[in-house]
Amino acid sequence: MITLTTDFGLSDPYVGLMKGVILGINPQATIVDITHGVRPQAVGQAAFLISKSYSYFPSDAIHVVVVDPGVGTARRALAVVTPHGLFVAPDNGVLGRLGFIDQSGRLADDCKGYHLTQPAFWRHPVSHTFHGRDVFAPVTGHLSLGVSPDRMGEEVSNLTRMPYLEPAWHDNEIRGEVVHIDHYGNLVTDIGEALLENGDRLLVEAGGESISGLSRSYAEGGELLAIVGSFDTLEVAARNASAEARIGARIGDTVRVTRHEGKGNEDRVA
Amino acid sequence: MITLTTDFGLSDPYVGLMKGVILGINPQATIVDITHGVRPQAVGQAAFLISKSYSYFPSDAIHVVVVDPGVGTARRALAVVTPHGLFVAPDNGVLGRLGFIDQSGRLADDCKGYHLTQPAFWRHPVSHTFHGRDVFAPVTGHLSLGVSPDRMGEEVSNLTRMPYLEPAWHDNEIRGEVVHIDHYGNLVTDIGEALLENGDRLLVEAGGESISGLSRSYAEGGELLAIVGSFDTLEVAARNASAEARIGARIGDTVRVTRHEGKGNEDRVA
Amino acid sequence: MITLTTDFGLSDPYVGLMKGVILGINPQATIVDITHGVRPQAVGQAAFLISKSYSYFPSDAIHVVVVDPGVGTARRALAVVTPHGLFVAPDNGVLGRLGFIDQSGRLADDCKGYHLTQPAFWRHPVSHTFHGRDVFAPVTGHLSLGVSPDRMGEEVSNLTRMPYLEPAWHDNEIRGEVVHIDHYGNLVTDIGEALLENGDRLLVEAGGESISGLSRSYAEGGELLAIVGSFDTLEVAARNASAEARIGARIGDTVRVTRHEGKGNEDRVA
Repeated sequence: MITLTTDFGLSDPYVGLMKGVILGINPQATIVDITHGVRPQAVGQAAFLISKSYSYFPSDAIHVVVVDPGVGTARRALAVVTPHGLFVAPDNGVLGRLGFIDQSGRLADDCKGYHLTQPAFWRHPVSHTFHGRDVFAPVTGHLSLGVSPDRMGEEVSNLTRMPYLEPAWHDNEIRGEVVHIDHYGNLVTDIGEALLENGDRLLVEAGGESISGLSRSYAEGGELLAIVGSFDTLEVAARNASAEARIGARIGDTVRVTRHEGKGNEDRVA
Repeated sequence: MITLTTDFGLSDPYVGLMKGVILGINPQATIVDITHGVRPQAVGQAAFLISKSYSYFPSDAIHVVVVDPGVGTARRALAVVTPHGLFVAPDNGVLGRLGFIDQSGRLADDCKGYHLTQPAFWRHPVSHTFHGRDVFAPVTGHLSLGVSPDRMGEEVSNLTRMPYLEPAWHDNEIRGEVVHIDHYGNLVTDIGEALLENGDRLLVEAGGESISGLSRSYAEGGELLAIVGSFDTLEVAARNASAEARIGARIGDTVRVTRHEGKGNEDRVA
Repeated sequence: MITLTTDFGLSDPYVGLMKGVILGINPQATIVDITHGVRPQAVGQAAFLISKSYSYFPSDAIHVVVVDPGVGTARRALAVVTPHGLFVAPDNGVLGRLGFIDQSGRLADDCKGYHLTQPAFWRHPVSHTFHGRDVFAPVTGHLSLGVSPDRMGEEVSNLTRMPYLEPAWHDNEIRGEVVHIDHYGNLVTDIGEALLENGDRLLVEAGGESISGLSRSYAEGGELLAIVGSFDTLEVAARNASAEARIGARIGDTVRVTRHEGKGNEDRVA
C-alpha cells in the first residue's frame, strides 16, 4: 500500500500523473490519498499531518510526502526505512515530526536513510519543477515492487531538521500553535493530549477568546469549545460552526493553556 | 465494493484515514468516494444524495455514510442490511430517504438493522470525535470480509427519522426545496420527475424568478431554465453559468411549481 | 487502466457514480482521476490538460474526457483508438490537441474513430443531462473488458475541431495564452519548450508585468518568474506565492515572448 500527502490540491493533473507513473511500474499497487490539502509550501503542516496519519496504515506501507518548495535546487530526495513504514520525501524537514530523528537530525538506530541519486529509477527527462512525478513516483513504484532502497542511492545518517520544539508546561503555561485548520474550521494545535490532564481546570486562549475547561464532544460544548480532537491534540472548535471564521484564526497563531483558579467545572459554574 | 459519503471535505486526512483502516483489515476492498462534499453537519443533504446514488452500485455494495454532528454523544451507530446494499451510518436520520423505513421509522420486512455495540470490531482507543475512523471504518472492513452484522450488535427494528414530507401536488401547486447545489451552481430540488408531466405547461418559481416550461437539455434552455436533472428531480440551472450565483439561492430555499394558463410551449411563445 | 478527466469538480456524486457504473461492469478496473478541476464547460482547457497528461499512462489505458456542455443535444459521443491509448469523449473538440487529427479534423491513418450509437452498451434510462454516467461510463466499462469499439457504433473519419493555432515565432514575437492556472496560482501557457531556446535572452510579458530571462526552478527565480513548467510549456509563477493573485491573470489572457537586447543574463545584470 502506498499513501500520498502533498500540497498539490485536487484541481490539477499533478496527483493523477504521480498515480499513472506509479501504476505504470506496479499495476498492482493500492494508492491511498492521505491529503493533498496541505497549504502550498507548508512543510511544517505536512510534517504534522503525516506524523498523525501514518499509524493508521499497515507498517509495510510506503508513505510519499511531497511538499517541495525547493524542487529543482540542491535539496536531497530521500527514502527512509523505519519500523513503521517506508517514507519517501524531499529532505526539507517534512519527516521531522515522526519521532525517528533526534534534535540534531540523526536517524534512530532502527532506521536507515538513503539519498536518492540513481537516475535508473527515475522517469526521464526529469523536469526541474515536478520531482513528484519524475523522481518520487517512479522510485515509489520500484520500492513497492520490492527493489531495495540501497540500490537507489547512498546511505545517509542525518536528515535536515526544521527548528521545532514540542509544546510543554513551562511556568504554569503551555504555548502551542495552530498547525492545521480543518474543513469544519476546527483549529488543530500541536498541544498533545498527555499535557491536558484535569481538563476541567484548564483555560484555553486563542485569538483573544478564552475557553474554560475541555469538552468531550463537539455537540456537548458551548458555542466555542476546546477538545482533544482526533489527532490526539488540543483543538478549538465552534458548535455546528467554524471556529476559524468566528475568531479569525490562522495557521501559526499561538494557543495558550493555563490552569485556572477553581477546582473544576462545578466550582467555575458556582 | 465499499462507497463513502461524508461531509469531511478533501482538504484533511480524514477520508484517507478511513481508507487506511478499511484496507488494513481488508486489503482487497475496492473503495469508491460518492462524495465528501456534503455541507458540514447537513444530514438532510446527505440523506438525499445517498438515496439518489446507491442504485448505481452493485446490490452487494457496502455504503458508509458519515455525516455525524452527534459523534461522541449517545446517538447509535448502525448497520442496515437491505436488498439494495448494506448501509453503515450514525442513527441520525441520514438513512431516512432510502425507502426502507416508514413514517414512524420502522424498518421494512426485507431489511434488518443492527446497533453496533461490539467493541471487538472497532479500532482502539476510540476517539470521541472521529467514529468514522474508529468505529464505522473498522466495522466496514470486517463486513466486507463477510463477518455477519448480527455479531456486531443487537438487532433494532426502528431507526431515527427526520421530519420530512415528499413534495406532492396540493391545491394545484408543488412546494419543494433546494436540497443540493452542485459544482455548476445548478439548484437540485427534491421534486421528483413523476410529478412533472406535461412540462411545457409548468411554471417554476425560485428566488423571485419564474421559468415557464421545462427544457430537455442545459444547452437548449434559456439563460435560466428548469430541467429534470440526473438525480431524476427538478433542477433550476443557468445556461453555461451558475444559477446559484444568478439568483442568490441557498440550500433549503423553497421552489414552487404550478400549471400556467396556456396550452403548451407553442401557445406561450405566440 | 482507466483515467477520468472532467469539469465535474469533487463536491458532487457525479465522479463517484461514473466509477460505480464502470466497476459494476468491470470490477477489476483500476481507475485514476487525472483531474475533475477543469473549469465548467472549458473544452479548450480540458483539451490542453489531457494532451499533456496521457503520455504518463500506459499506452493501453482508456482515457475518458467528459467536458460536455452540449450533453443532450445532437453532438456525437466518440471512442477513438490510437497508438497512445483509447479515448472516450464527446465530439466537441476536446480531443483536438492530441496530435492525431489534422487541421481539417481528419483522423491520422493509425487511428480509428467510432460514433457511439449502440444503446446496448449504455445504461438505461439515459438521462438528458449526464451522459458521463449513462453513456461514457458503461461504454468504458465494456471497452475495458475487451469489447471491440466497432461493435459500439459506426466508424468515423473526421472529428469536430475547435479553431486553435499553436503559438510560434512570428515577427520576432510569440503570442500564446494562459490555458490553465494551477493550485499554486502558476499561469500555465501553451507556449512550448521548443520555442524557448536561449532563455536568458527572452522577455516574457503577462498582465502588464515584464520578466527578463527564464528561471530553472521556482525557488531560484525573482518574486515573479518565468519557467518551463512540468507541462513542458512556459509558466509565469511567483516565488512561494500566487502569480494569479499577483498579476490578476485569468485563463485566456495573452502572454507575449520577445528577445531582448542584451546578450544574456550577465549582460542584463551589468
